Amino acid sequence: MTGWLAVAGLGPGDENMVTPEVRAALADATDVIGYFPYVARVAPRPGLSLHGSDNRVEIDRAGHALRLASEGARVVIVSSGDPGVFAMASALFEALEKRPDLHHLDIRILPGITAMLAAAAHTGAPLGHDFCAINLSDNLKPWPLVEKRLRLAAQADFAMGFYNPRSASRPHQFTRTLEILREECGPDRLITFARAVSTPDERIQTVTLAEATPEMADMRTVVLVGNSATRRVGRFVYTPRSAE
Amino acid sequence: MTGWLAVAGLGPGDENMVTPEVRAALADATDVIGYFPYVARVAPRPGLSLHGSDNRVEIDRAGHALRLASEGARVVIVSSGDPGVFAMASALFEALEKRPDLHHLDIRILPGITAMLAAAAHTGAPLGHDFCAINLSDNLKPWPLVEKRLRLAAQADFAMGFYNPRSASRPHQFTRTLEILREECGPDRLITFARAVSTPDERIQTVTLAEATPEMADMRTVVLVGNSATRRVGRFVYTPRSAE
Repeated sequence: MTGWLAVAGLGPGDENMVTPEVRAALADATDVIGYFPYVARVAPRPGLSLHGSDNRVEIDRAGHALRLASEGARVVIVSSGDPGVFAMASALFEALEKRPDLHHLDIRILPGITAMLAAAAHTGAPLGHDFCAINLSDNLKPWPLVEKRLRLAAQADFAMGFYNPRSASRPHQFTRTLEILREECGPDRLITFARAVSTPDERIQTVTLAEATPEMADMRTVVLVGNSATRRVGRFVYTPRSAE
Repeated sequence: MTGWLAVAGLGPGDENMVTPEVRAALADATDVIGYFPYVARVAPRPGLSLHGSDNRVEIDRAGHALRLASEGARVVIVSSGDPGVFAMASALFEALEKRPDLHHLDIRILPGITAMLAAAAHTGAPLGHDFCAINLSDNLKPWPLVEKRLRLAAQADFAMGFYNPRSASRPHQFTRTLEILREECGPDRLITFARAVSTPDERIQTVTLAEATPEMADMRTVVLVGNSATRRVGRFVYTPRSAE
């Protein structure tokens, strides 16, 4: 039996945003591995083992997947959103780097709808011009680097998408993020808080930076910041295609 | 009859990357509007009118879609990739801005797999840390703004994705892009040229900036540039989740 390993993006939550490519990989898998709530989105069936694990054990999970595939299993690591955007694909390659004996394995990354782009779609088109994506968590990078990137991104007049904007353990950092944005972009810039996008709990709120408060974000929120031309049209927010 | 308008992302080319949400909208539509090659991806059926149009008539196309929907049609504007990333969603809202009488219309943006993220998936995980997306065409913005954004993005140590890197009418600009990247990032930085991703013509090539030549890109190419930590593992290219 020839094993393989796929890292698959389940999208932001709505099952109608899961691609047929990902569905086919799940239908053909013998093992599905991932963070508990993502594994819970996969229907059990005979012949399929579901391996849910805790958050923050990404490298262990990737190593487990590599071992199973090397033994002949057909393994899918499930990720929310897109596996290549602040998710499991990089963790897999970090684990693979330590196992040159497994470099020959059949490995595929299957893209998905990432939360930032689903949030943008449900807001209008706030990322319709050049943009950047920043993970605001300092678990894996020093906070001063986050501040530096925020300032340079604002100076470049990028629209921005933020992942992991705020957690209970570091509430002051998002307060600081809003301060930096007000300094660099002014009080009138539009900011959108998109919570639980594409799920029954979805809530999307757009305000100006002057009106924004840290409590508008939590760990289920993606934050979008417009560029200097971003504006409202009806109930939507969009960024024009042109710039001066 | 109540009309509606959806702007739907068909993904980068592979039909297995089209979401069920987009398929359902197409199945329920009376009219499909878009650039010829994207409309050609929709199967004809009785009761469906296909309206293909030329490139660079985005605002006319959006106005046509708004008129049809206001008359009761169920209209899908098709976009390649994701409609919110250098595609039709912003053009629609530009057209809607001129028609306050149509702000009440039922309008939805349906996300898709954007070329940059499909290219990243087929390369490994080159965008696995903070990144930006830049449209290198100067059709809708002055070239000096592109140069400024390239330099600031490099100074922020973002990984980068470039859309529309090169066309016959402006070949010198991508030459200039490579010069700027070599100045800011040094000769060893990895750059990936991903052509016709997810189609039978797919070709993915990763080289260093020192080795990169302008001819490696054309209008069907998405270009990905790593950050300072991006490296190869086996046949893949990835960016670690952590930074210093």
